[in-house]
Formats: sequence, C-alpha cells, structure tokens
Amino acid sequence: MESPDFIITYDGFGVSELFFCPGEVDLARWFCPGGGPGSVFVTDQSVAALPALGSFCGRFGGTVRRGVGIAGNDLLVVLPPGEAHKTIDSVTAILRAALEHDLPRRTRFCGIGGGVVCDMTAFAASVYKRGGGALELVPTTLLAMADAAVGGKAGCDLGPYKNMVGSFYPARRIRFFPAFLRTLPEAEYRSGLAEILKTALLFDSALFEDFKHRRASLLHPAEGDFEGTILPIVQRCVEAKARVVERDLRETGERMLLNYGHTFAHALETVAGLGTVPHGDAVAWGMARAVTLSARLGLCTDSYCGEVCALLTDYGWETGPVPAGRHGFTAEALLGAMKKDKKNSDAGTVRVILQRSLCDTVIREVADDDIRGVLK
Amino acid sequence: MESPDFIITYDGFGVSELFFCPGEVDLARWFCPGGGPGSVFVTDQSVAALPALGSFCGRFGGTVRRGVGIAGNDLLVVLPPGEAHKTIDSVTAILRAALEHDLPRRTRFCGIGGGVVCDMTAFAASVYKRGGGALELVPTTLLAMADAAVGGKAGCDLGPYKNMVGSFYPARRIRFFPAFLRTLPEAEYRSGLAEILKTALLFDSALFEDFKHRRASLLHPAEGDFEGTILPIVQRCVEAKARVVERDLRETGERMLLNYGHTFAHALETVAGLGTVPHGDAVAWGMARAVTLSARLGLCTDSYCGEVCALLTDYGWETGPVPAGRHGFTAEALLGAMKKDKKNSDAGTVRVILQRSLCDTVIREVADDDIRGVLK
Repeated sequence: MESPDFIITYDGFGVSELFFCPGEVDLARWFCPGGGPGSVFVTDQSVAALPALGSFCGRFGGTVRRGVGIAGNDLLVVLPPGEAHKTIDSVTAILRAALEHDLPRRTRFCGIGGGVVCDMTAFAASVYKRGGGALELVPTTLLAMADAAVGGKAGCDLGPYKNMVGSFYPARRIRFFPAFLRTLPEAEYRSGLAEILKTALLFDSALFEDFKHRRASLLHPAEGDFEGTILPIVQRCVEAKARVVERDLRETGERMLLNYGHTFAHALETVAGLGTVPHGDAVAWGMARAVTLSARLGLCTDSYCGEVCALLTDYGWETGPVPAGRHGFTAEALLGAMKKDKKNSDAGTVRVILQRSLCDTVIREVADDDIRGVLK
Repeated sequence: MESPDFIITYDGFGVSELFFCPGEVDLARWFCPGGGPGSVFVTDQSVAALPALGSFCGRFGGTVRRGVGIAGNDLLVVLPPGEAHKTIDSVTAILRAALEHDLPRRTRFCGIGGGVVCDMTAFAASVYKRGGGALELVPTTLLAMADAAVGGKAGCDLGPYKNMVGSFYPARRIRFFPAFLRTLPEAEYRSGLAEILKTALLFDSALFEDFKHRRASLLHPAEGDFEGTILPIVQRCVEAKARVVERDLRETGERMLLNYGHTFAHALETVAGLGTVPHGDAVAWGMARAVTLSARLGLCTDSYCGEVCALLTDYGWETGPVPAGRHGFTAEALLGAMKKDKKNSDAGTVRVILQRSLCDTVIREVADDDIRGVLK
C-alpha cells in the first residue's frame, strides 16, 4: 500500500489519523473489499457513478445502483444522494444492512462521499449495537474535505430540522484524495470554497490574502492546481479545525467559533427547504450577514465589513439581506428558523458568532431586532 | 421536596444519583411540570393510565391518551406501550416533539415507565441535538428498577433485532418509588424477579438463600412487603450493578457478566417475536439453559445445576430445552438468533456467560454443537 505524503493526527475520543493521498484514487487497493473480516462501505448513487469508484464498486458484484452490494464479508450500501435523503430512514438502511448480514459490534464503517454520506455513516457507526465500530471516511467533495469529515459530528436531519439528531463520533482514519476534486461540478466546488474562506476569516490571514489575490486559481483551478494549490489549503483548514476540535470536541466553548456564518446559513437552508441551497453558498451568505451585523453593532469597522462582502461578491456569492430571487423569504421566517437552531436557547436573543476583525472572533447574544436589522 | 431515605451514586460519564422514595408516588411534586425551563417527560399509555400519575398527567391539560401534552415549557409524550413499539419511530416521536417545541440542546428528558420507555427516552436524550441533555428516569416496573434503568444502556429495536441500535447514556437521576410495584400485574412482577435472581446468582449468595427460603413473600408480597422486603432487595441489586457499571460502562469486560442468561433469552425473544415472551421470563429460561450448559461442559456440578433449575421451576419459570407450548421453535432457529446477538462475533462458536458455581461466573466461547446440545 502506497504511503501518503502527509499525515495529521488529532485526538477526539482517541486518535484520528488523516492521510493525504495525491495521485489517482484507488479505493480497491486501500480497502481491499471482500478481503477483510467485515466492513460496511457507504456511498451515494452520484459518487458510486464516478469512474474513480469503478473498480471498487466492481468488487461488489457489478454495478450497485442503489441498495446493498456484497463482497465476501463486506457490504456496499448505496444511498440516494443529497440533503433530501439525509434522513433517519437512510441511517436505518445502513444499520439494517449491517444487521441483516450479521456484522459484529466492532465492524468498520467507511463513508465515501460528501458531507451527507460522511455524517450519516458516522451516525450509523455510533449507534450500531450501541457503538464501538471503527469509522473511516473518504470525503469526496471540497466541503467534506475541508470541513465536514473532520471533527466527529455525526447525524442526520429530522423533517425540516437540519442536523438535529446525532452524536459525536470522530473517524479513526480519514483519507483525502485530491483527484476527486477534478470531477466535482463547479457549483459544488465553489460551495466547498466557502468553508475554506470561513477558516481563513477565523484563523488564517495569509489564506485570506490568497483569496484576495489568487481568485482565478482558487475558483477555477487548472489540472495541476488540485494537488499543488488546493490540497495544501485543505491541509491547512483541516489542521486548524483539528486543533480546535481537540480542545473542544463537544462544542461547549471554542468550537462554537467554527459555526461562523452558520446560524444564518442554517436558517436559510431550512426556510428554502433542505437541499435547495448548497450548504457552502448558504454559509457564504451567512458570513456576509454576520459581518454586516458585526459592523451594525460596532464590533468591527465598516471597512472590514466592506472588504469581506466585496470578496464574497467577487467569488459569486450572494451577500444581500435576503438572497436574490427568493422574495418569498421574510426576515421573520429567517429569524424564526435561527431561533430553532440547536445553538440557541434564549427567548428574546439569538446567539451568533461575530468578528471584531480578521481572525478575531467572538460569540454574542444579539437582540432579535438587531438580527432583523440585517435581514431586511 | 421531601428527601428520600437512601441514595446511591455511581460514576458512568459523570455521576448518577439514585433516590429511593418510599411512600406515595407524587410526581407532580417531584417534577413540578409546567414550572421549569423546559423538560420532555416520556411515558406510555399503560403507565399514563395509572392512578399514581393522575395529578401529574393532569398538569398537561387533562388526559393525554397518546401523543403530546403541553404544560408551560414542558412536554409529556405518551407512546403506545410494549416491546412492539420499542422502535425508531417511537424514538423519533420523542425527538420530533422536542424539536417542534423549540426545546434547547440541554433539555431534561425524563422517562417514566418500564424498560422500554427508559431505554428509548435515554436514546432520544443521547442524540437530541447531538446529546448533552440531562436524563432522569422513574422506573415503574420491578424489572426496570432492578435492572434496565441503571447503567446507561439506551436504545431501541430495529425490526426483529432487539436493542441493536443505541448508545450509552447514563441517567443523572433515577427515582425509585416502590408504590408502583403494588399496581404491577403479577406476570410483569414475576418477570422482574428474574433479573433479581440473576443478580443473586452472580453476586449475592445471601439473596440466593432468600429466594430459596422466602418464596411466598417474594412471589406474592403483601402490602407492606414492597417497602419492607422488595425495596431493600432492589437497592442491593442496583448497588451491585452500579459498581460493575462504574468499572466497565461500555461493556468491554466485566459488565458482560450481567448478560448471564441473556444470550439465550434474546434468542428466544427474537424467535418468538419481540414482545411475545416477557423479558424476565426469557432470562429465567436462559439462566436454566446457561447452567445446564455449564454442567454439560463440566464447569459446574450437576448438583448446582439441579439446585438452580429446581428453584426456577419453583417460581414458575420454564427450564426445559425449548419452552413448553412453543414446539415451532427449533434448536437451529434459536442458535441462529444467538449468533446474531451483538455480543457474538465468531463463526463456529457463540460467546456465553456460564457459571462454575454460585457467584463464580465466566465468559466462554462455546462450540455451536454444545449449544445445540442444551436446546433439544
């Protein structure tokens, strides 16, 4: 097995090893499906259709379009794709497959896909026979690589409530293959960039400069840029997140900062209908609202606010009070959804993450009326 | 608030406090529904119908027969009763009620009922907004008092697979009201005695003597016996279990001993159809099979085996290879179900808990053929 170029470890409950694997994706070689004591591989129909997964899926008796494929003691569960299927039913499908094939408590669960697949695989692993199985992840989108796969958040949606059911269950191993990024649809790639920009705003001023001055190669990377430019950036994001998670896995303090832009974003995603707005685009809009709120409250300068909003616009993200073309959304509907967010508890205020300046982030309880002020 | 007579604490993830509360059940006084910052009370239709819960349920706007009642910021979720409803749907109903009423992450979840209600309430608390809420339990059956409520096992069934989805989430507080035992149907009471006898066999030879010599007052307690005899026995069981759980919450070693009789029992319950055989009765039969297997393998004497089986028979439990009146069950069906049990992993053997003598218990991998030998 070829060794990866770079490994990061961090300690959630036990150590997570993160492998960065340049070159072609060869999952069949990494995971040897059919050869082990029993693993459950989980992916979705979109990922299963990628050429990079051809030989891997082939081990499971030809093309598994949807449902469960079998190779030796290993299972491949192929779920319907997208946020609309981030449901308890999908998690149950993973669990049921493992139960029906008698897999033991300490089974390895391996999620191969975007944030939805990674989160649900982790949740299934955490509750299968009360947990104890090893979790491995192969994030295939930029968003999952830079954010979702790292940090142990596991879960699914419940009806209109996004990520409201779940647990903390860090992966033992995460493998990053930049080659997946080459096949990513542009809209999905850009959505992932938003979480990277979030990391820059929170922790990495040099990366923020990159966003300002290297727009073309970040937004439209040439073939070689994925390994030469994007992978190192992913590594920086992952390293920054890993350090925060290590200090605060269960999000009782510092880790909340990683939700910058997310309280607004989740509200937009909920009001729009889960799966309608790509998560990263929602986060980008949420960061525009958060920095505007920061300026409104006098926390940051108008100049910093303007700089961030201009950059977001420059990358094609919406920054206005209510996203364009969505005039059905009212400030009240968005505010109402923000108050249902799991990070919120009190009556007349909403807890939001704000910035005083680049890399200087704070948590504040903000009055509903101030929130309304940046939503219309 | 009146103080209980006796408190046990143990440390799972954080300290659990166990309160023993003689006298009348007055839940409205203990929990002040409608007066707090928001709690989710969970029970089932059978328990909600008990006179002892009358004033408590009354706070939730009259009789809540099934569904969700509201009092201030508090919810009362009344589930359909029984093992047949120990499902992901029931757990989801609890979560959905809490979400629809905007309850925050650190909401208190309080299960009032038998093992099914306690296990599902705990599971819901452990995954609601990724966990963090405080769990309290009020076990209302002998089985839940002596066993299910203590030790942090949380979960539900998935189709025919018993307790195969779940987590470990110890209650912060458990309140024991012996008055609930007075209203327990005799069959359910006897089912609970089986778990107490299990504790006697594993840890408490004096309690085993009680079972031999005080059959009448154990099996058919007079009014005063519930507080005078049964409650102290429950306390001994809980204390013994708490010490084991403290040392091995996640059941990686010593705690497995508590599954004495359970591998057989779960197989019987599964083959019979979940909810058909009371859990304790299945455990009693399972202990008869386990001690018979122990004798067959030369681990214990025939005399110890005979003594235990005679005692079980004396209390009205079935001890034969296949429970009477269930001739549809074959040894193969039971063996097959045992191999699906979550404590089992290997191919040609089953892991079972066996005894060398009273209070001397071991874990062994036993060949399938030896298992067959005690099932026909």
